[in-house]
Amino acid sequence: MERTLISSLAEHIEKEVVIKGWIDVARDQGKVIFFDLRDRTGVVQGVVFGKPEILETAKTGRVGCVVSVTGKVHKRPDKMRNDKVQNGDIELEITNLEIINTALPMPFAEDAELNLDTLLDYRPLTLRRERERAIFKIQAEILVAYRNYLNSQGFTEFQAPKLVGGDAEGGAEVFRVKYFKGVEASLATSPQLYKQIMAGVFERVYAVGPTFRAEKSATTRHLSEISMLDLEMAFIKDHTDVITLVTSLMREIVEHINDTCAKELTLLGQPLALAPQTFPVMTLREAQALIKKETGVDKTQEPDLEPEDERFLCDYANKHLHSDFVFVTHFPTSKRPFYTHIDPACPEFTRSFDLLFRGLEMCSGGQRVHKYEELVERIKSKGLDPDKFQFYLQAFKYGIPPHGGIGLGLERLTAKFCGVTNVKEATLFPRDINRIDTFTSQEQSETADL
Amino acid sequence: MERTLISSLAEHIEKEVVIKGWIDVARDQGKVIFFDLRDRTGVVQGVVFGKPEILETAKTGRVGCVVSVTGKVHKRPDKMRNDKVQNGDIELEITNLEIINTALPMPFAEDAELNLDTLLDYRPLTLRRERERAIFKIQAEILVAYRNYLNSQGFTEFQAPKLVGGDAEGGAEVFRVKYFKGVEASLATSPQLYKQIMAGVFERVYAVGPTFRAEKSATTRHLSEISMLDLEMAFIKDHTDVITLVTSLMREIVEHINDTCAKELTLLGQPLALAPQTFPVMTLREAQALIKKETGVDKTQEPDLEPEDERFLCDYANKHLHSDFVFVTHFPTSKRPFYTHIDPACPEFTRSFDLLFRGLEMCSGGQRVHKYEELVERIKSKGLDPDKFQFYLQAFKYGIPPHGGIGLGLERLTAKFCGVTNVKEATLFPRDINRIDTFTSQEQSETADL
Repeated sequence: MERTLISSLAEHIEKEVVIKGWIDVARDQGKVIFFDLRDRTGVVQGVVFGKPEILETAKTGRVGCVVSVTGKVHKRPDKMRNDKVQNGDIELEITNLEIINTALPMPFAEDAELNLDTLLDYRPLTLRRERERAIFKIQAEILVAYRNYLNSQGFTEFQAPKLVGGDAEGGAEVFRVKYFKGVEASLATSPQLYKQIMAGVFERVYAVGPTFRAEKSATTRHLSEISMLDLEMAFIKDHTDVITLVTSLMREIVEHINDTCAKELTLLGQPLALAPQTFPVMTLREAQALIKKETGVDKTQEPDLEPEDERFLCDYANKHLHSDFVFVTHFPTSKRPFYTHIDPACPEFTRSFDLLFRGLEMCSGGQRVHKYEELVERIKSKGLDPDKFQFYLQAFKYGIPPHGGIGLGLERLTAKFCGVTNVKEATLFPRDINRIDTFTSQEQSETADL
Repeated sequence: MERTLISSLAEHIEKEVVIKGWIDVARDQGKVIFFDLRDRTGVVQGVVFGKPEILETAKTGRVGCVVSVTGKVHKRPDKMRNDKVQNGDIELEITNLEIINTALPMPFAEDAELNLDTLLDYRPLTLRRERERAIFKIQAEILVAYRNYLNSQGFTEFQAPKLVGGDAEGGAEVFRVKYFKGVEASLATSPQLYKQIMAGVFERVYAVGPTFRAEKSATTRHLSEISMLDLEMAFIKDHTDVITLVTSLMREIVEHINDTCAKELTLLGQPLALAPQTFPVMTLREAQALIKKETGVDKTQEPDLEPEDERFLCDYANKHLHSDFVFVTHFPTSKRPFYTHIDPACPEFTRSFDLLFRGLEMCSGGQRVHKYEELVERIKSKGLDPDKFQFYLQAFKYGIPPHGGIGLGLERLTAKFCGVTNVKEATLFPRDINRIDTFTSQEQSETADL
C-alpha cells in the first residue's frame, strides 16, 4: 500500500493506511501501547490493543525506531479530543507494525535542556528535536523567500568561487589552502569582487553560499564558516536604491515566514517581526546623537557601532518606531573597504549602511566605487596592491554601471527570527575556533566521544 | 524620469523614455550615429541625428560605455523592419545621451573566436558576450527548476559545511586547510555524510554548493571546485525510487529550460533535450553487453564505464530510445563508496546508478546503507577507521530510515544543455590545476596580465 503522510490522515477516516516514520514517544501500559508517531509532516497517536502478536513487536519499539505502521484512522470521541496538538481529533488503530530500523536508548530526553556543547556534539540527534527542526525549517523558508523575491525583481543567481588566489579584500583573517604545485590559495571571505564583476554582466545578481573567516573571536555572533546571502544591483542612483530594495526584500521574507512557519514561530515563542513599509534610516552620527540623548553616553566620535549600541537602537526602534529593523548609514571612509563609495557631500563618510535586526547587525551594504581610476586610488590608499586586483579591475576598465549591494548572514537572520541567543544554534554544523563537528583539540575530543 | 527596460519599449511608442545600459555597437556615419544599446532585458537601436550638441557626446560613445539615454520610441517604417532581432520594429530617436562610465577599447571583437585561456583570462569581459550570458542564464534557470521541483515534493534545503575535519569519504584527493591551533582541516569533496544525517531529520533534503577536488587531471570534464546539486530522500524501497524521482526532476528541468531559455538555446544552436516519461535503465553488465553486441568491443568484465562507453550509450539511447538520458545501475561493490547499499540479489553489485546525459556522466546516486552494524563493517572493509566517523554514525545508531540520493554536477549539466565541449566554459570562474582566475604559475601569470 502507498504511504500516507501523517498530515493528511484526517482525509482517511475509517480507512486503512500505511504510515512511515519514527516513534517519538512510547507509552507501554501492558495490554495497550500508545505511540506518538512522527514523519516529516507531523505527529499522530497510534494505539496497539488486543492483538497479541503485534503487541509483542510493539514492546520492542523504542523511541527513535523507524517504523512502518498499518492502521485504521478513527475519529476520537469528543472527550478524548485534544485540539491543541496536530491530529488531536484522530487516532490510529495499529493493525500491523514493522520495525524498519532500530535505535539505541536515547542519551537524553527529547525536552532535556542541553548545554551548547552537548547540543552540537550530538547534532545528528539533536537536530531531530522539534525545536531544532523549527529553526532549520525557518532557515530554509528564509532562502525560499529570498530567492523568490529576487527572481521576481530580475535578479540572476550565480555561483561565486570559494577558492581564491589571495585575500583580495585585505583585512579579514583568511584560511590558507595548499593548492597545486606549491601555490597557496585561500578561502573566500566574501563573494564581493565576483558579484561586482557579475553586476557588469547581468546587472542584478545574487549568490548564496559559504564564506570563511578565520575569526579568533569565540563570541555568540561569530562562525568560521558563514552562509552568506549576497546581492548586487547595477544602475542605482546611490545607496538609497539598495536600501529600498532590501526593505522590500525583508518585508517579503517576514511575510513568507509568517505565512509558512506560524507553527514554528509559536513553538519558539517568537512574535511576528515588525517590518513597516519603510524602516527607520539614520546616519551613524544621528544614531550616536540619539544614543547620547537617550542614555547620556557619548559615543559621537566613535567610528562604528558596538554590539550594545546595536541593541539600544533596535530596542528604541521597536518601542518608538514600530520596527524591528533599523538602517544605519554613512560609516567612516576609514572603516569601510576600498570598494565603498564615498559620499561626495561629506567625503569622510561613505554611502554605506548596516541593517540591524532585533539588536544585531545582519547585513552590510552600500554603493560601490565604479570609476576605474578612483578604485585604483582607493586600493592604494588601503595599502593594497592594485596589481593583485587586475582580474577584478577588468570589469571597471571596460564600462561598469553604478552599482551597490549587500551581504546578509543567513545564520544571524535565522537566529533573530528564532530568538536564539547564539548564532551557532542557528547553524546546522557550526565551525568555530574550537570545533569542526566535534572539538578539534585532542584532549577535548577524547572526552567528547560518543 | 524612471528607467524603462529595453524589453518593454514597444509599450511606449511615440513616448519619451529613459533607458540605461551599454553601447553594444556604435556606427558613426558622420552626421548620424547609430547605436545598439543593451540592458539586461535586451537590445534596441538608437539613432542620433541633427542635434549637434548630442552628436558631439555621441562621438565619444565607444563600445562598452555605460549610458543613460533619453529618447522617443518610433515604429520603424515597414521596409526598415527587421523581424529577426528583438525590437527590430522600433527605433529610439535619441534626444539626450549621458555617458555614465567610460570603457577602454575592447581587446577583441564581440564575435571573435577566443581560445579557452583568453576566454577565461578576460572573464569579467567575456562573460558579457551574448553566448556566455546565454550559458549562465541557462545555469541559473536549471537551479530555479531544481529547487522549485524539490520544494514541491516536500524537500527541505540545507547548508552543508565545506570545512571538514578529515577526508571522511576516503579516496578522492582533498585540499588541506590550516585550521586553528595547528589543526589541519580539509575541504569537503561532497556533502554526502551531512545529507545522510539530514535525511534523518527532514526525510527529504537537498543542498546546493561548492565541493572541492584536488584532481590532478586536466581534462574537459574536471574542475577543482564544482557546484554540486545534492539530494537525499528517506523511506525509499530501493534505488529505483530515487531513479523515479530523478527522472521527474530532469523532465521538469528540461521543460523549464525549454520554457524560459528558448532564445538562449537557439543562440547556442541546441535542440530541446529528449526526456521521455521514463528514461532507459540498464545495469552495467547489460550496458556492456549492448556495447559488445553493437560495436564488437568486449568490456563485459570492466568494473566501470569509460568516457567512450558513456558517449556510445547516449548516442544509442538518442537514436533508438528517443532519450538523451540513460541510467546505468549496479556498479560493482568494490568500486563504490562504503555507504552504497549492496544488492542482496547479487552482492557483488550495488543498488547504485549513474545518470548519463548527452554522452557524459552527470550524476551518481543510489540507495545507502542504513543499518549501523553493516555500515561499520563496510567502513572497515574499505580500510577506513570507523572511529573517524563517530559523528556521522550517531545518525545510524539512533534510527535512520532507508534512504538514497544523488549528487549532480551543475557545470556538467549546464555544459550539456549548452553544447559546450569543455565544462570550464560552463563555469563562471573555473579553477583547475593551472588556474585560479588567471594562471597560478608565475611565468604564465606574467604573460597573462592585462
